[in-house]
Amino acid sequence: MTITTPDTHKTTPRSGAIDQLAIDTIRFLAADMVEEANSGHAGMPMGAAPMAWTLFSRHLAHNPADSAWADRDRFVLSAGHGSALQYALLHLFGYGLPLSELRRFRQLGSATPGHPELGHTDGVETTTGPLGQGLATAVGMALGERMNAARYPEITGHHTYAIVGDGCLMEGVSHEAASLAGHLGLGRLIVLFDDNDITIDGPAGQSCSDDQLMRFAAYGWHVARVDDGTDVDAIDAALTAAKAAERPSFIAIRTVIGHGAPGIEGTSKAHGAPLGATVLRAAKKNAGWGDQRFVVPAEVRERCAELAMAGARQQAAWTRRYDTFEHASPVRCAEWVRAQDRELPEHLEEILDGIETGIDRATRQTSQAVLAAVAAQMPELIGGSADLAGSTGTVTGQDAVSALDFAGSVIHFGIREFAMAAVLNGLSLHGGFRPYGSTFLVFSDYLRPALRLSALMRQPVVYILTHDSVAVGEDGPTHQPVEHIESLRLIPGVRVFRPADDHETIAAWRAALRHTSGPSVLILSRQTLPSLESADGTEPDFLTSTGARVVRQAEQPDIDIIATGSEVHLAVEAAVALHARGLVTRVISAPWRERFAENSGVFGRAPVVMSVEAGTTLGWQGLTGTNAIGIDEFGASGPGDEVLAHFGMSADNIVRRAVAAANAHHSAPHDNDQHPTEGNS
Amino acid sequence: MTITTPDTHKTTPRSGAIDQLAIDTIRFLAADMVEEANSGHAGMPMGAAPMAWTLFSRHLAHNPADSAWADRDRFVLSAGHGSALQYALLHLFGYGLPLSELRRFRQLGSATPGHPELGHTDGVETTTGPLGQGLATAVGMALGERMNAARYPEITGHHTYAIVGDGCLMEGVSHEAASLAGHLGLGRLIVLFDDNDITIDGPAGQSCSDDQLMRFAAYGWHVARVDDGTDVDAIDAALTAAKAAERPSFIAIRTVIGHGAPGIEGTSKAHGAPLGATVLRAAKKNAGWGDQRFVVPAEVRERCAELAMAGARQQAAWTRRYDTFEHASPVRCAEWVRAQDRELPEHLEEILDGIETGIDRATRQTSQAVLAAVAAQMPELIGGSADLAGSTGTVTGQDAVSALDFAGSVIHFGIREFAMAAVLNGLSLHGGFRPYGSTFLVFSDYLRPALRLSALMRQPVVYILTHDSVAVGEDGPTHQPVEHIESLRLIPGVRVFRPADDHETIAAWRAALRHTSGPSVLILSRQTLPSLESADGTEPDFLTSTGARVVRQAEQPDIDIIATGSEVHLAVEAAVALHARGLVTRVISAPWRERFAENSGVFGRAPVVMSVEAGTTLGWQGLTGTNAIGIDEFGASGPGDEVLAHFGMSADNIVRRAVAAANAHHSAPHDNDQHPTEGNS
Repeated sequence: MTITTPDTHKTTPRSGAIDQLAIDTIRFLAADMVEEANSGHAGMPMGAAPMAWTLFSRHLAHNPADSAWADRDRFVLSAGHGSALQYALLHLFGYGLPLSELRRFRQLGSATPGHPELGHTDGVETTTGPLGQGLATAVGMALGERMNAARYPEITGHHTYAIVGDGCLMEGVSHEAASLAGHLGLGRLIVLFDDNDITIDGPAGQSCSDDQLMRFAAYGWHVARVDDGTDVDAIDAALTAAKAAERPSFIAIRTVIGHGAPGIEGTSKAHGAPLGATVLRAAKKNAGWGDQRFVVPAEVRERCAELAMAGARQQAAWTRRYDTFEHASPVRCAEWVRAQDRELPEHLEEILDGIETGIDRATRQTSQAVLAAVAAQMPELIGGSADLAGSTGTVTGQDAVSALDFAGSVIHFGIREFAMAAVLNGLSLHGGFRPYGSTFLVFSDYLRPALRLSALMRQPVVYILTHDSVAVGEDGPTHQPVEHIESLRLIPGVRVFRPADDHETIAAWRAALRHTSGPSVLILSRQTLPSLESADGTEPDFLTSTGARVVRQAEQPDIDIIATGSEVHLAVEAAVALHARGLVTRVISAPWRERFAENSGVFGRAPVVMSVEAGTTLGWQGLTGTNAIGIDEFGASGPGDEVLAHFGMSADNIVRRAVAAANAHHSAPHDNDQHPTEGNS
Repeated sequence: MTITTPDTHKTTPRSGAIDQLAIDTIRFLAADMVEEANSGHAGMPMGAAPMAWTLFSRHLAHNPADSAWADRDRFVLSAGHGSALQYALLHLFGYGLPLSELRRFRQLGSATPGHPELGHTDGVETTTGPLGQGLATAVGMALGERMNAARYPEITGHHTYAIVGDGCLMEGVSHEAASLAGHLGLGRLIVLFDDNDITIDGPAGQSCSDDQLMRFAAYGWHVARVDDGTDVDAIDAALTAAKAAERPSFIAIRTVIGHGAPGIEGTSKAHGAPLGATVLRAAKKNAGWGDQRFVVPAEVRERCAELAMAGARQQAAWTRRYDTFEHASPVRCAEWVRAQDRELPEHLEEILDGIETGIDRATRQTSQAVLAAVAAQMPELIGGSADLAGSTGTVTGQDAVSALDFAGSVIHFGIREFAMAAVLNGLSLHGGFRPYGSTFLVFSDYLRPALRLSALMRQPVVYILTHDSVAVGEDGPTHQPVEHIESLRLIPGVRVFRPADDHETIAAWRAALRHTSGPSVLILSRQTLPSLESADGTEPDFLTSTGARVVRQAEQPDIDIIATGSEVHLAVEAAVALHARGLVTRVISAPWRERFAENSGVFGRAPVVMSVEAGTTLGWQGLTGTNAIGIDEFGASGPGDEVLAHFGMSADNIVRRAVAAANAHHSAPHDNDQHPTEGNS
């Protein structure tokens, strides 16, 4: 092989010539992409190209021909704005990403969106861009590897690599995730810090003085520094040492943002804009590069093809191990396959049907009964709580994982809601698991950015959010959700279930487990709720079919009350009182309100329609106008039943409002009898 | 003074007898409160009583007779679940908190809610409970002290103390806040870590292995350890050393949760429940305490009264300095008073009126013009960005603060959205400042928990949230808000303004600056928007009066289009096209939708009413039913105008939807002509 060494470039002596050529190819592919799009981030790829190339060419076990290989090493570009770096690598190594897509960088419908997006680009393991989350998701993947290795050691053993920037490390979620990784001793997690000392607003030193190595050492990580981020051999040696360490590894690699771009390298000007034709031309000239765009030297293409072949051989070796495993342990192997395919255990329906119903208890308690029963039969159902296991009902009777033993199914996430959710995403993305996590509903705010990514990535993570209203009581407004149920419904692709009793809680779990292409949220009560029989012979699948069921039937009702969760039994109580006053009232429980809204025609509609939910009314107004009973202010500290009554969450208040609405309706006979959302359509 | 030393208690020799008596008083007051309420957290107060007592009796400069003394030391109980500890102290030192209120712990309407709440209890500096935020808010207070000291050194010089628990330190926001405090060298911030090694779910070591001292050292803090958390003199010495340090201080104090409660001390059983009558009786017996509840020995009351008098003398000394200052520098003093009182500068209206209008530009750019003009005349208007100063338009021309100089008005928050918001709360609570912060709208998710506390505490923090729709373009769905505008509107007490042009942006800033009892959110565009004249001779105050203005008037309109922000000019364009088709169309810009919804009657209502906003439609359905045009799915990466058109944010699509709605209306003559929210009322 003939290597064309660029003659004018200050080559790093210790790097081989092919390495330098490949690195320059990556740099200029990335810079060309940004220039072509006239949008994007060229500086990060130019600085981080050597570490990324070293990783991909000397360490990463991957097979570009099969990006779904279960035991591949995972690579996460946590500094997702550097997407052009990842696209250049994926193209060079022969993933399904042609040069034509690199030319369409950041265009609508391209395989090269502005930030890496799962499902858009072959080889992208997770959506990144919201800073810090890539790192936390990588922790989840690394945990997934260890948990899978404990179950299937014959066919599991890979690394998880992440490249992070200053932004990732300043974000709080990096603390939560790194602390958890250190605690669990995730030795196969290796984080490369693109230490370029630049943020969008200027030198990183303008806002941060952390000693990152000391910080990660405090988390129990193996730490190392590479002073010259262009020194491929030094990076290589640091990676080799990191793989040998039994703890997670953090390697700070000093780089220059916009490396080689005259006049702007090493400054924040190189961060978030194209280099511009003049600078790019000068950078290419200095590197002995031609003026054309999207150049890939034949030697680089050849080298990458060799490396891809080596990756294919690695997978082939793994496949032989897999075949042996399948032959030796067909039952365990079938279990592994089932979990990988997100197929439910055959006996799931039996398990769910076997859970005792007709019991008055908190929906969090029914949820715990479901979780305990299912977890015992569904080893891929794993998860835990952000230090509220007892309160949220996630004590399943299964063992917890620890640094010494990953065979358990329970994860003590600690008081780290955000990292919990990102780790759940990582576990789900790793494959082989159906993860769940839990906290109080009010603290869903803390994990919201990761829940959004669950939805964007369509990962079937189950969120168990309990203590779902002001009924929390004494802990007061900081612990009482008001706006949270509605705010979760707003996130596209999130299924929000708020069951009213034990029947509906089981139905919600059934729906959540069957839903494999997006997150489900279970909104559960702290307080005991009565078990309510369906009045309409509802099928177990009512939740996914219509989202609702009639819990108090009425012929030609004067009033419909739609309620959710802990307010349904109040509505039933109110309906009985209204009946005594001559107002025929039907009660519909709508645990999945969005599905009900789409299907409300199935139920018909009484002249007066009201809703009751112990939270903000804004999202109900399309269904029930001003007849939405709820709580549009912050809660208060006091015994739960007193607080509920104080905020109008009582049968008495529902009766009062219903009578007023019925009177208003009768006094305005030409008023709207229509479904408001059908009003002007 | 006669000291009754409890004879059976294992007294710590180095603690004076009065100290021990006071500590036991605090412990049992707290335990009695929890017992009486049958709800709450007794373990934390029992373990942390010695450090709290040492702080209050030997270091805290405060005057219980005047909790509003501007130069008082601030005390933040970040581990807010230990509220009983704070209430016991406030009672003993003579704040306006009688024993009768301690007996009403956690009752509706009491001054002793479950977690400390600003405004409910004299002497409580901030609402705590959501873990980690107390620490971050304390950082803001400590920063406020430094910034105030740079402006008014004659009358400023106090410390900020916080007690934090394991939970606070595991939360990501603790990282962001501690890193920022270290960077800024906030030497008057002293954090006491109640190192009791217990979390709700069990031993802290179950989920965390951080070396906290090394971690805080990595942030540049002074760190120290006290091995015996009952050793008052050791705690005292550590506090003295911390005050001498020029860096923020972190003191880890080893304690025993539920100290002295037989059988449960040192376990998670002591965390979140009453001790129970038996255990409490035994604990009291061991301490030589009587069986009665709410006992305060006379010696303790006397000692606290002496200490309170000493605090009053400290304030008196400060008042003399203040008088000197007032005499020597009446103008500066008047400025200080004005800022303390949150009064606006006299010339604010002139400044706002002087900003050039009629310019087509991004609303973020108009906002920058406002900010630059106002900041130059309103020194208490301080703030900055989470590393997006240029993008969000918060470059004001003022200097930035640094560890070396706090005279500036700009804060480089770094990539720390959550801590930024909590620090803004702290700055506002400190007094003397009107703080603002900025980031992209999509990342409001990262700071949401602190924005909620801004609202709960009614702090006039201004949030500048830009890049407010899919028009963000190439950065793709991770950077494109969809659900965010509506989700912010859901939080009680948050004013969400989405101006359509330069006039409305100035109006939004005017409204935000005038609003002194709650947060305001400015939702601003990345892209250029045309300046739109009002069609109805709207007053500058339209935003706070009706929340909306008519930008295209029409006599007896067939259609009303209500729009916000960047969609208003599209609505105007559509109205022109509709007019050409014979459909008379009025366009209302509603930058404050909630205020408009309350006042929509002022505007009357066309037979067909539509809305346009580039975000989720759920919150609009109460106003416009199915005629809400918006985006109920995640965005996509591509040039902004293409992405907008792809998701139907175009005049053409509005015309198409309007024609369809008008046709549907005519074919259903008996259909609803009413305002849907008035439907059944």
